[in-house]
Amino acid sequence: MTARNLLLLPGDGIGPEAMAEVRKIIAYMNDEQGAGFVTDEGLVGGSAYDAHGVAISEEDMAKALAADAVLFGAVGGPKWDDVPYDVRPEAGLLRLRKDLELFANLRPAICYPALANASSLKPELVEGLDILIVRELTGGVYFGEPKTITDLGNGQKRAIDTQVYDTYEIERISAVAFELARTRNNRVCSMEKRNVMKSGVLWNQVVTATHKEKFADVQLDHMLADAGGMQLVRAPKQFDVIVTDNLFGDMLSDVAAMLTGSLGMLPSASLGAPDGKTGKRKALYEPVHGSAPDIAGKGIANPIAMIASFAMCLRYSFNMVTEADRLEKAIANVLDKGIRTGDIMAEGARQVGTVEMGDAILAEF
Amino acid sequence: MTARNLLLLPGDGIGPEAMAEVRKIIAYMNDEQGAGFVTDEGLVGGSAYDAHGVAISEEDMAKALAADAVLFGAVGGPKWDDVPYDVRPEAGLLRLRKDLELFANLRPAICYPALANASSLKPELVEGLDILIVRELTGGVYFGEPKTITDLGNGQKRAIDTQVYDTYEIERISAVAFELARTRNNRVCSMEKRNVMKSGVLWNQVVTATHKEKFADVQLDHMLADAGGMQLVRAPKQFDVIVTDNLFGDMLSDVAAMLTGSLGMLPSASLGAPDGKTGKRKALYEPVHGSAPDIAGKGIANPIAMIASFAMCLRYSFNMVTEADRLEKAIANVLDKGIRTGDIMAEGARQVGTVEMGDAILAEF
Ligand SMILES: CC(C)[C@H](C(=O)O)[C@@H](O)C(=O)O
Ligand SMILES: CC(C)[C@H](C(=O)O)[C@@H](O)C(=O)O
Repeated sequence: MTARNLLLLPGDGIGPEAMAEVRKIIAYMNDEQGAGFVTDEGLVGGSAYDAHGVAISEEDMAKALAADAVLFGAVGGPKWDDVPYDVRPEAGLLRLRKDLELFANLRPAICYPALANASSLKPELVEGLDILIVRELTGGVYFGEPKTITDLGNGQKRAIDTQVYDTYEIERISAVAFELARTRNNRVCSMEKRNVMKSGVLWNQVVTATHKEKFADVQLDHMLADAGGMQLVRAPKQFDVIVTDNLFGDMLSDVAAMLTGSLGMLPSASLGAPDGKTGKRKALYEPVHGSAPDIAGKGIANPIAMIASFAMCLRYSFNMVTEADRLEKAIANVLDKGIRTGDIMAEGARQVGTVEMGDAILAEF
Repeated sequence: MTARNLLLLPGDGIGPEAMAEVRKIIAYMNDEQGAGFVTDEGLVGGSAYDAHGVAISEEDMAKALAADAVLFGAVGGPKWDDVPYDVRPEAGLLRLRKDLELFANLRPAICYPALANASSLKPELVEGLDILIVRELTGGVYFGEPKTITDLGNGQKRAIDTQVYDTYEIERISAVAFELARTRNNRVCSMEKRNVMKSGVLWNQVVTATHKEKFADVQLDHMLADAGGMQLVRAPKQFDVIVTDNLFGDMLSDVAAMLTGSLGMLPSASLGAPDGKTGKRKALYEPVHGSAPDIAGKGIANPIAMIASFAMCLRYSFNMVTEADRLEKAIANVLDKGIRTGDIMAEGARQVGTVEMGDAILAEF
């Protein structure tokens, strides 16, 4: 069997603690199931800055490019608030996305039944919620040039960011959304601001054309992104797959994640295009939550989002569907048993730390 | 007494029906209180396009520039989905904002106690909610150049939008936010994406400097806009005044409006800078909701947001604070009595149409 090469980038804050729990699952799969994972490790974010003065070193970038999949923890924290813009912790993540060409960011917003009451929404609005947000990840205002601050004299500065989208970028992300919709409830809602942005006009046209040419069997709707934000809050279950650009995807996926009441629990996958020869996609998996510096190092962080990200990795990078299903089921079972970290604690539940939560999931796996 | 000059631009969809109810209030104030309002009327949006082939005529623009305040209904509808981009209904609204230099958009998100149950959030999270979103309205990606779609050949097009912010634009909008915070709970939260956007970096710097120089008595916090969207959904009452850019303001204010359960009820004010000589600000008042083409012409639209927008007009353009308070109280009283339009109908309430709702509010006024 060929080795399965994983690069682990735990990053900052609670990243390393959460990653440690995934490492236990990998070891178990190697020992008991002969899964053949070979792991390497690198630094990203503030920890890379402290070691190398950059947000990710060239050596670790080379490892990321060579790996079958990257597992990413979280980056950032007050310690690095004042480092120069180009080497701020987020720059490491943005470079990974860009250089690995991970254009498709899959963000499931599901509501674990055991946690429906933790949502700020009325439980009946989120029970059984299962949305997939497909966010474009390598274009738009995140990477467009010019991206500058210029001194105009007279105490005035001018900041410029540029949103750029080409036809092919919109085509490939909408194809991903339509394909995934076919494996779900066969509905896609595309969101943009075509009433204000030219990129919204092009987005709308290309999604419509891609649909007509290749995915006419999927139901397609369009919504303005602001109305989409409203509808997510009003009645989230109306959606199946949402496809949107990088910046709107950032906002809308965070709102959707918060709706579920399961924020500390949500994973994401960032995928590249299938390689022409091998069919393999470059991929990075990361929790939706951040580095939570306030609780880092205390052993109380919730590792579920990181573990669920590894489940996505099994599914999308290694086609280990049975194992992915089992790992997700193990998470649900542990929650059903009332085992909880502090962030999702509820009356009558048993509160545990990061390590115990990892052990409990492994025991159910 | 000098005349108070109002330009009414009812627009499309339910705009005219809602505006008719404001006209009754204006007539009452003139007849009974000698308020001295002089009203003129114009076309905007699809109705202007049908009449003149543009989203607002030069003549109506001149009237808007001359008026003390503009009352704006709503624009747009499927009928005009395919008109050229430059004359689409929204272009009329965007031109008004830009040419009148209405850089400060005030969007209160309040929860009428009688409607707390209509929110998709748990009632305890929204009861008593009173946030003010101060959105920059004449800059950013809405108006920055280049804003183009270019044919690259090979079936590829490239769309570009440009976010531009200068120091003075951020200074003046943050000053408005700080000043308003002083009349409320003295707290401002500024939202941007400084971890990704250069305009976010400048935004953060200028808000911080303005605070330090002139408003150090106000509490200032900063939040990334995506985290801000999350926090709005998680615990909206943590906020007092939120200040943010044009595009984030569009998204965040819609999410905030939906949270209140009172979407059909929320007004907004768009203000210019005080005139150097007279101290007067140009101003436009409009409901947060859209033109709702699906229910237009049926006499069932909720006119409350339009009437509440007129209350803001009394307050901000004419300093008629008592009258504004009384009008807002009249709205709350009518709701307390269980009088409801269809969109906010609840068990045991009495359902009425647009005209009856207007009459009921006038009777309480
Ligand atoms: C950390 C930050 C650069 C990132 C983004 O804005 O994309 C984050 O918010 C996310 O959603 O993954
Ligand atoms: C109609 C549209 C151009 C407008 C905007 O995007 O500003 C609307 O959504 C708003 O929030 O006032």
